[in-house]
Parts: sequence; structure tokens; C-alpha cells
Amino acid sequence: MLGARLVTRAGALVLVAVACGGPAVPPEAPTESSGVVATPPPAPPAAPAVPVPQAPVPADPLASWNDGAAKLAIQGFVARVSKEGSPDFVPVPERIAVFDNDGTLWSEQPMYIQLAFTLDRVRELAPAHPEWKAKEPFKSVLSGDLKAALGGGEKALVTLITATHAGMTSDEFTAIVERWFATAKHPKYGRPYTECVYQPMLEVLSYLRDNGFKTFIVSGGGIDFMRPITQKLYGIPPEQVVGSTEKLKFELRDGKPVLVREPAIAFVNDGPGKPVGIQTHIGRRPIAAFGNSDGDQQMLEWTAAGPGPRLMLLVHHTDAAREVAYDRTSSIGKLDRALDEARAKNWVVTSMKDDWKTIFPAAK
Amino acid sequence: MLGARLVTRAGALVLVAVACGGPAVPPEAPTESSGVVATPPPAPPAAPAVPVPQAPVPADPLASWNDGAAKLAIQGFVARVSKEGSPDFVPVPERIAVFDNDGTLWSEQPMYIQLAFTLDRVRELAPAHPEWKAKEPFKSVLSGDLKAALGGGEKALVTLITATHAGMTSDEFTAIVERWFATAKHPKYGRPYTECVYQPMLEVLSYLRDNGFKTFIVSGGGIDFMRPITQKLYGIPPEQVVGSTEKLKFELRDGKPVLVREPAIAFVNDGPGKPVGIQTHIGRRPIAAFGNSDGDQQMLEWTAAGPGPRLMLLVHHTDAAREVAYDRTSSIGKLDRALDEARAKNWVVTSMKDDWKTIFPAAK
Repeated sequence: MLGARLVTRAGALVLVAVACGGPAVPPEAPTESSGVVATPPPAPPAAPAVPVPQAPVPADPLASWNDGAAKLAIQGFVARVSKEGSPDFVPVPERIAVFDNDGTLWSEQPMYIQLAFTLDRVRELAPAHPEWKAKEPFKSVLSGDLKAALGGGEKALVTLITATHAGMTSDEFTAIVERWFATAKHPKYGRPYTECVYQPMLEVLSYLRDNGFKTFIVSGGGIDFMRPITQKLYGIPPEQVVGSTEKLKFELRDGKPVLVREPAIAFVNDGPGKPVGIQTHIGRRPIAAFGNSDGDQQMLEWTAAGPGPRLMLLVHHTDAAREVAYDRTSSIGKLDRALDEARAKNWVVTSMKDDWKTIFPAAK
Repeated sequence: MLGARLVTRAGALVLVAVACGGPAVPPEAPTESSGVVATPPPAPPAAPAVPVPQAPVPADPLASWNDGAAKLAIQGFVARVSKEGSPDFVPVPERIAVFDNDGTLWSEQPMYIQLAFTLDRVRELAPAHPEWKAKEPFKSVLSGDLKAALGGGEKALVTLITATHAGMTSDEFTAIVERWFATAKHPKYGRPYTECVYQPMLEVLSYLRDNGFKTFIVSGGGIDFMRPITQKLYGIPPEQVVGSTEKLKFELRDGKPVLVREPAIAFVNDGPGKPVGIQTHIGRRPIAAFGNSDGDQQMLEWTAAGPGPRLMLLVHHTDAAREVAYDRTSSIGKLDRALDEARAKNWVVTSMKDDWKTIFPAAK
């Protein structure tokens, strides 16, 4: 089963890279903020009959969200589960919220950020591998022909990942990832990848934590690729990151214990792998789940199937002007079956174009 | 590699069961509280020169520990890492402490508690499996001949585990485990297994958490066998339990998503698997690690190899009168190479007989 999942994900990556140059297909429904909320949010408190000194109005924790169904759904859900004595009250330890990463918390177009890292690593390592000049898929990566490089499908991609993600210790890999993020920039936005995160989602993360939630990332991306930056980017510590894993091996090197990253995928945390990753890592069912693609469908289904109030939200990439518009026919972040299910089940669908005042945080 | 680890662990379980009836071999050194502390604990504050009204003396958070090197080592370590401005200060998010479970937090003799569960499940399921009366290893379990039942080695054990731990959903398994713990009792102590936890270690868990530590279980036991009870027993939530895992499969049953426990071990979190489990699950290196057997050796080595202050502690089962005395020659919880390493490296070795005022909490 892991093999099958790997094929799927690798296939997606290949298609993505091939599609890099062309414009994305616009999403089918440009205004999608109508995701119906099953339960209306609580009514605002009635105005006092007699004017009294007012406390300063607190800043809106979701300031980057336009007023609308999506914002109200989030606020209403949080109010319901955090009100003590309410039949919908959820004790703090059970307030588990899970977030996909690629396309939900940060940009995934024109290619997964981890694929950009992989290609940069091939170029950086090339001087030590003169044989790559004549060996695919390295040859095509080095000549800049990404389409040819990834035309070899899953096998080519696994070769690239193995050459760049394995063979070193876990500590060494962390240092490599940190160094890359310190300088690498997004090809379209011209800003560091670490600033290609979605401001409205950062606000959701903080808002949930301020209301007693524990927030987790549950991503198809590599767990050790994300962890060096998730605290800084999202306020999420390493132990709350769930992702795909490579096989690790404990060794003593000169008497010093190390964990060596082996050239094999141990677990693919994508699609039906996400509920498995959640159970293995968290051990309890979330009450809120945020995603953006069919790879998140089973995670949202798993979250929805528990008792009591639930929040399932899809980020719909509808904003061709400020970001990229894509859904049913995209080779990356394809949103098709999950969009149908969201509509059928009244999950919240957020339109980036209509619901979000800003996409990215102010440049640093 | 996983296969090899499974063999080791399964072999241990087999030998344990065989050794159940006989008395354990006394440990080699009855008084072992001399585990040297590398750094002395801070001196008590000087008495005030002029008598002033005294605040009530706070209760000792380690009240079940006799004064001695082991207790001082724990107190000294916590004081060092939690004193702001000190060169040894460790920020709260990095105060990660890991605890083995079997033999460190609760009893593991005369057999792992999970093996007792397995055997009880065979007996409970037998009426639905008439074929077991003629089929090993079930036949011998049902006739009470444990030695014969487990004489089939790893294969027999895997057969028993598969028959009792797989085939149901994750939610169903949790309910089965909860029901078992509600009534099952320890054969020697006559109290529920949930009360066969070590009172002094409960105090260490609370003491560390009160000083900003996040406490994790890192056990060779099954992760989903422990999780239903770790919050109640140890104050450790499911997401902070790391253990061995069975393969899970996401399915829709009558449109309802379930996770089915498949008859295959996904990961064995024992020996060299423990640092792997720590990296995969926690993603950062602990600064304190507690174990009791050679299966914890690599976890303690991994913890010790980081920079700054570290606490590595072994629980030495020296108390034949109040519990069981065993170490180098025991078929379960064998403590041999790790004991040598602890002495060579000045890790703390706690003698249950000499360091602990009580073993178990007061009966409920």
C-alpha cells in the first residue's frame, strides 16, 4: 500500500514539474465563499440599554478574513466548543486541530517547495558527482530541462530524493534544510519561501491556540524537511508535525550515536495515509481539519466522523491575480472529489479571492 | 532490521513466559544507590541571620525517594536547567523527558502486562474459535501450559498477537483495552494493573512537568495498548506516547471511515528503534531519559550525546521483598550492558530497595 501511495505522490510531483511553465487552469467557481455553515455562529451580545464606558474593542484575531460565511464558520465553531457548560463544549485536551501544509499553510505552486529544495540540492552536490553529467535524471536537472528530468516518472523522482535526502545523519540534514531556507526564494513572488505562508491561515492557527487548541501539521511533505522551520513559521513545535518519513538507522560512529537517513521511504503521509499518520502520531481524532486538495479528503472524512461539533475547511485557490487559481484539473493540489464531498456535506470552502483580504504577510 | 528487532523482542517475551514460575535471580549488587552525579546539586539557601516569619515548608515533590545520590541527581539536574540566566539554562520547549514504560513506570514481572492481556484475550475469544482447541499455540494457552504455548518461539507469539491485536478497528481495540484494564489484576500483587505503577516515578513525572518539562513515554510496548490509560496513570496524553505500532489501513465501512488494525508490525520501538521512534515522533533530542533495561540503552546514549546538561537514569530492580530483584541474567528486562555503560559514564542508577520508600501507590 505504501508503494501505491508513493506512486501517486511521485506521479503528482512529476506532473507538477512538467506543468510548471504553463498558466494554471482557472477554478471552476470563482466565488466560492458560500460554504454553508451547519450551525450559525452565536449572535453578538445585545447593546446595553444605558451607555456605559466601553472597554477598547479587541483587535480582530482574524483580521485578514473578509466578513462572510467562512469567517463566521470558524468563529462559530470556536465559540461552540469553548463555551463551558454548553452541550457542545469540548475539554481543552481534546481540542486537536490538524492542518495540511502544501497549499493550505504555504504556497505549493509552481511546484512543491520540497521539490525546489531537491533540485537545488542536485545542483549544489553536482561538483562532487562528475558522473551526474552523463546520468539521468541528474543530467537533465543540471542542464535545466526539468521536463526531461522528471519524464522518468516515479523512478527518476525517487532517484533524486534518495540522492538529496539520504546518506547523511538527521542532524546534518536539519542543518542542510536550515541553510537552504535561509537564502532560497520563490521564483514568482521573489520572497523567501518562509514568507510564502498564508497570512489568514497564520491567524487561524493563533486564534485556535488562543482558544485552547493544540495545532498539528499533517502533511504529505517530509517530516524532517518541515520541522526545522515550523516553529518559526507557524508556532508549531517539531513534536506536532506529522509527515512522510524516510527510514532511519541508529548507529555508533566513532562511539558517537547518530541516526542515519537511509534511502527508503518508511511512510507516506498522504491521502488515506493521513488518518493513519494522525492515529499513529496523535492517537486521537481531531475536531478540526484544514486542507486544500484531494490528498486531504480522508483526513477531513476522519475528522468529520467523530461525535460532537466538527470543523472541516478547504482552502480553494481561486485567486489568479494575487496567487494562482487551480482546482479540478491541476496536476498539483488537485481539488476535485474533495470539493464535491465538501459541497455535499456542508464543509466550509474558503475562496482565497473572496474571503482573504491579503494572501501573504507583509514582506520583512 | 525491523524483522530482527521483532525477533529480539519476541524472543524476550517467550523467555519471560517460560521463566514465569521460578524465582528471579537476585541482582548482582544489592545496594546500588551510589550512581555518581557528575554535577553536585545546588547548595540549600543560607539560613537568614535574623529570625523572620517562615512560609510553610512546601511538600517534598519527591517524597517517596530516600535522601541519597539518586534523588539529589534529579533535583540538581532540574535546578540547573530551569534557572534562568544560568549557563545550563534550557528553554521550556526543549525540556523533553522520555520514559520507558515496562519496568520503569510499571511492573514488568512475571510477564509484560501486554502479554497478560494477550493471553486473556485468547481465552476470551476461544468460544468463537472452536478450531483453537486443536491448534497450537492456542491449544496450550487454553490448557494453561504457557511454556508449551510459547515454546514455538517468535512464530507462536506473532500468531497470538495477530489473533488478539488485529482485525478490528482502532476504536474497537481501544474499547477492548479499556475493558480489560477495568478488571484485570496482577497475579502477585492482587491489585489492578493500573495500580502496579511505581509511586516514586509518578513523582518524578509530576516534578518534571511542574518544572516546565514535557514528558513522553517511549516504550517497546504497543502504542495503542498504552494510550487508553496513560493520561489516567501518568498524566501523559496520547500524543506523547511513542511505542511499537501495527499497520493500520484506512477504509470506508458503510460510508463510515475506520482504521483497521492489520496483522503486521509496522515499527518495533525497542533498543536501537527507540532513538528512531524519538526522532520520528518528537523530532528533537530529549535532555532526560529514564529506563531500566538493555532495551533502553540506545535511548539513553542518544539522550546523553546532546550538548548541555543531561540526565540519564536507570531503575535497578533490587528489591526482592517488595517487588522482584533481577538484572543481568533475567529473561525479561535484562539489565547488563546498559548497567556497565551507566557505571562507565556516571549515569544515575537507582536502587529500588535503597532509594525508594515505597514501590506502589496506596491501594485505592
